[in-house]
Amino acid sequence: MAPFKHEITVGWADCDPAAIAFTGRVPYWALEAIDAFWREMVGMDWYALNLDHNIGTPFVHLSLDFTAPVTPRHKLICAVEEAKLGNTSISFRVRGQQDGVECWQGRFTCVFVVSDAMKPRRAPEHIRARLAALEARQ
Amino acid sequence: MAPFKHEITVGWADCDPAAIAFTGRVPYWALEAIDAFWREMVGMDWYALNLDHNIGTPFVHLSLDFTAPVTPRHKLICAVEEAKLGNTSISFRVRGQQDGVECWQGRFTCVFVVSDAMKPRRAPEHIRARLAALEARQ
Amino acid sequence: MAPFKHEITVGWADCDPAAIAFTGRVPYWALEAIDAFWREMVGMDWYALNLDHNIGTPFVHLSLDFTAPVTPRHKLICAVEEAKLGNTSISFRVRGQQDGVECWQGRFTCVFVVSDAMKPRRAPEHIRARLAALEARQ
Amino acid sequence: MAPFKHEITVGWADCDPAAIAFTGRVPYWALEAIDAFWREMVGMDWYALNLDHNIGTPFVHLSLDFTAPVTPRHKLICAVEEAKLGNTSISFRVRGQQDGVECWQGRFTCVFVVSDAMKPRRAPEHIRARLAALEARQ
Repeated sequence: MAPFKHEITVGWADCDPAAIAFTGRVPYWALEAIDAFWREMVGMDWYALNLDHNIGTPFVHLSLDFTAPVTPRHKLICAVEEAKLGNTSISFRVRGQQDGVECWQGRFTCVFVVSDAMKPRRAPEHIRARLAALEARQ
Repeated sequence: MAPFKHEITVGWADCDPAAIAFTGRVPYWALEAIDAFWREMVGMDWYALNLDHNIGTPFVHLSLDFTAPVTPRHKLICAVEEAKLGNTSISFRVRGQQDGVECWQGRFTCVFVVSDAMKPRRAPEHIRARLAALEARQ
Repeated sequence: MAPFKHEITVGWADCDPAAIAFTGRVPYWALEAIDAFWREMVGMDWYALNLDHNIGTPFVHLSLDFTAPVTPRHKLICAVEEAKLGNTSISFRVRGQQDGVECWQGRFTCVFVVSDAMKPRRAPEHIRARLAALEARQ
Repeated sequence: MAPFKHEITVGWADCDPAAIAFTGRVPYWALEAIDAFWREMVGMDWYALNLDHNIGTPFVHLSLDFTAPVTPRHKLICAVEEAKLGNTSISFRVRGQQDGVECWQGRFTCVFVVSDAMKPRRAPEHIRARLAALEARQ
């Protein structure tokens, strides 16, 4: 299966005086792509997860390697894959490419919590089932 | 020597519906703290480095581990240390704490380039000397 | 003619602890919609205007009235119209709506400058002609 | 009385390829300055107002006029003044200057609401009294 893809239009507002996207924008885009994965692939985004289901997914780790600058010349295609579904955590691998060139890739790990208590919890079974099915199809 | 410290006032604008700072804000703050290190400790910030000296420092890597949420209840103190000064690169360790509790720590690596050509270069000697002296004093 | 529309996916990252989009995000979105208008309707975005044509369009005024909160529950549709093409300036009216409800509207005025000198200039004739044609069709 | 002043360090991250602060950053800074006014002058910031007192202050209007670009060369000093305390609303005038030059000024109006219901309300008397005293001293 092809990984889930989320397209970003890079603009003037994202660029610094070096005329490339500012480093700090990349984690934002990767997180936005993961939120889109939740919405499109799991059926609820972080907002719905938190407000409707009282489930939060705070991040405990993120790392990024940058190999080419990002600019407004091309769309930024973010590919999101599940890297590992654990009992109380999930990791994602996110890769950003423009015009066929990989610009960055990263790994992001979050834990499931009861949102209003910030207490760790196992993800509900219907969400685990969906995430496990998606992971198996990759 | 105590590491360089940069203080951040966390505000409403930084927080998400979980009432804690959004994950994506943390890389921004860490980068802001490194820019402050350049300005206060080396004597020129990224803006001056690029515009006055034609030196850029694009990032090739960043990683962050999060151990406690960041909120507007306390100042966020970012401690910046040089982790390794290489020939054409430099790494920083940045730690964020609030009210004595470490909230996150990360590692950031950038390379020196000729800014308008984006070509790798060795840092100029007067800048290397300053960075080496700071590293030795840590 | 229907006005140009630019669609925005509002997310968790855009919301504050009141669980609605933070006020400061709205000017960003309105500006992003104007940049999209340039790209889609005029044929070059701010990045191309500046880097390829040495034309800048710094803003001299913006105003916004907010009538309903913005949330991630629906797409945010931004409608952009030219309000007035002057000799050295152009004004846009931008309206944001979600699920048929107008959330905000604003007016934005920028001036044409020689980008690298920040000196006022009349827009080049081929760009004026395009903007005038678009204004006439509204 | 001198107006309340809030100092901002403008950085690389705030600037666009024209090497000046991106337009969208200015509303953020003005809002940050108003949040600082609440914290320093009234004794509680938006976060405390909302979470501890269940009072929200959503904005219904903002307007800004820009007269000079903002850059990292100087601190940005934001002066905040109360423009009008109404029964259920309050307006602020915010001016930004660098190195003695006024860069922008704006007006911001928000309404008081019961935070968790988003219903309009009159501000509590102890807050009104504080705001009225501050207004009288201007």
